[in-house]
Amino acid sequence: MRGAVLHGPGDIRFEDCETPKIIEPTDAVIRIAATCVCGSDLWPYRGLQPINGPTPMGHEYCGFVEEVGSGVNYVKPGQFVVGSFATSDNTCPHCQYGYQSSCTRREFITGAQAPLLRVPLADGTLVPTPSVPSDNLVPSLLTTSDVLGTGWFAADAANVKPGSTVAVVGDGAVGLLGVLSAKQMGAERIIAMSRHESRQKLAREFGATDIVTERGSDGVARIKELTGGIGTDAVLECVGTQEAMMQAVRSARPGGYIGYVGVPHGVSLDGEQLFFSHVHLHGGPAPVRRYLPNLIDLVWNRKINPGKVFDLTLPLDQVAEGYRAMDERRAIKTLLRP
Amino acid sequence: MRGAVLHGPGDIRFEDCETPKIIEPTDAVIRIAATCVCGSDLWPYRGLQPINGPTPMGHEYCGFVEEVGSGVNYVKPGQFVVGSFATSDNTCPHCQYGYQSSCTRREFITGAQAPLLRVPLADGTLVPTPSVPSDNLVPSLLTTSDVLGTGWFAADAANVKPGSTVAVVGDGAVGLLGVLSAKQMGAERIIAMSRHESRQKLAREFGATDIVTERGSDGVARIKELTGGIGTDAVLECVGTQEAMMQAVRSARPGGYIGYVGVPHGVSLDGEQLFFSHVHLHGGPAPVRRYLPNLIDLVWNRKINPGKVFDLTLPLDQVAEGYRAMDERRAIKTLLRP
Repeated sequence: MRGAVLHGPGDIRFEDCETPKIIEPTDAVIRIAATCVCGSDLWPYRGLQPINGPTPMGHEYCGFVEEVGSGVNYVKPGQFVVGSFATSDNTCPHCQYGYQSSCTRREFITGAQAPLLRVPLADGTLVPTPSVPSDNLVPSLLTTSDVLGTGWFAADAANVKPGSTVAVVGDGAVGLLGVLSAKQMGAERIIAMSRHESRQKLAREFGATDIVTERGSDGVARIKELTGGIGTDAVLECVGTQEAMMQAVRSARPGGYIGYVGVPHGVSLDGEQLFFSHVHLHGGPAPVRRYLPNLIDLVWNRKINPGKVFDLTLPLDQVAEGYRAMDERRAIKTLLRP
Repeated sequence: MRGAVLHGPGDIRFEDCETPKIIEPTDAVIRIAATCVCGSDLWPYRGLQPINGPTPMGHEYCGFVEEVGSGVNYVKPGQFVVGSFATSDNTCPHCQYGYQSSCTRREFITGAQAPLLRVPLADGTLVPTPSVPSDNLVPSLLTTSDVLGTGWFAADAANVKPGSTVAVVGDGAVGLLGVLSAKQMGAERIIAMSRHESRQKLAREFGATDIVTERGSDGVARIKELTGGIGTDAVLECVGTQEAMMQAVRSARPGGYIGYVGVPHGVSLDGEQLFFSHVHLHGGPAPVRRYLPNLIDLVWNRKINPGKVFDLTLPLDQVAEGYRAMDERRAIKTLLRP
């Protein structure tokens, strides 16, 4: 089998890998129908996150169950399934509280940018669709695996409610699907922070009511201006840099909520500033498994079309170009088809 | 008039001050019935927070309204009132959201360790008691002004609900009243972290079910042990140091809540650690005004007896000894009577 392997900064190769097989009795092997490149894949691709030698890439996936281990009871070969980027047994205390991405048996999926994928804890990680989806549903179903689930968690963690005023920091695919999620949760006003015309357009399509192009103090000032000097009820921080986090802290009103889902890289929060900001802060790796049944349902019934974030589709063997296009911001998100 | 003035580390003097008078039409002047020394007063007393020259001290107060400005409509001379340590107009958007301690017109009270006190924004800051309280209610009423209101906010910010498992970091008066607050909110299990016998005793009296004497990693391990390896639903961080904040972050379960009310001194939160901890974080200067009516009611009807935190009562002119006793941890909290 050939799959995507990162060898160093900018060096993605589609090359021979070991073919996945059942190792633990709770494993399944999935034949990938579609996978994609995640914003978080760009951190190591850009050399901003170290890797330990050649690393199989990819953690967003959907496809057909090829084989299951002897301890798998619910997932069946032939089913079409979507799974979270974090595995979970869905029974431990953390899972029962809805934090499956902190499952005591959690592993982070890797190697999904390939035709086949081993998924540990299959029964607790994978959710089957009602039947085999039509092909045009596949991109949207794929988003539920991470990018939509993560945008949804950002909005949920930011306590978005009917009538909320929301700001979204970050116009990557997660930020854009954060806009969609906030809209679904009934937000009245959604301010997308973006400088890129194509992303602004998609943000508006997903429900953004206002676009702010300014950043830093100017961005904060603009959001204050748009909210009568008050600040927003909710901010979705979908980047993971210090600048983005400070943008969020300074844009929320006292008592407002920040949902942060950008994996923090070099972010440090000053305790005193946070204290006097009076914000609520919640985030982390999205507990996608908690949301999967609902999100699959919304996609299945064509209530939402999150697959629109894919503005580039490539055959899997062109994965290197998929990374390049996202790195250079020529593409919002690259869909890969084996 | 003579009042308490801090001149430098360890140097509190009871000395001649200007007698407070109405300056703004929205002011009131209060004749103090009781005041006290706050844990936060110890930061500048210990030289850990700079002061700009001689500083009148004290921000916890209750007493009789002596005089009101021409713009005060609800508060009347002769009423017995309690007020927040932060003034508020109680009408601005932040106030309406319940964050009166972030009122756009907020000032922090100072100079309450004196016989008379000027309170700006009297109508929005002060709450009268149903009638003149009996003298033995005064200590408990005084606590609602800050120390109880702050402990209550810690529990509220930490989302304490009936059945919650709660850890309280800090055995000062705020921590102890955090225990009382968690108990009032229906917590099933309350773990107080304390090494001091007299404070442990009071914690138990207020509702603590378990005492943990260990700190740091040992303290975290003990809390995990007490909670079946899971961590607590809620942690009240009532200190404000890096060690206490990390204790809180590491003791809560994924998805758990931290309410932090210790004014942070040198606290810095690593974004990545916070992200993977999956905790909710909320805190800041307690919006005491939001809670005052309910807390006064609980005290008035003798449902709670938070005044027990005062284990030293002194005449106001011995304020210096009051600070010393708290600094040396001989006293939990010092009540001062003019």
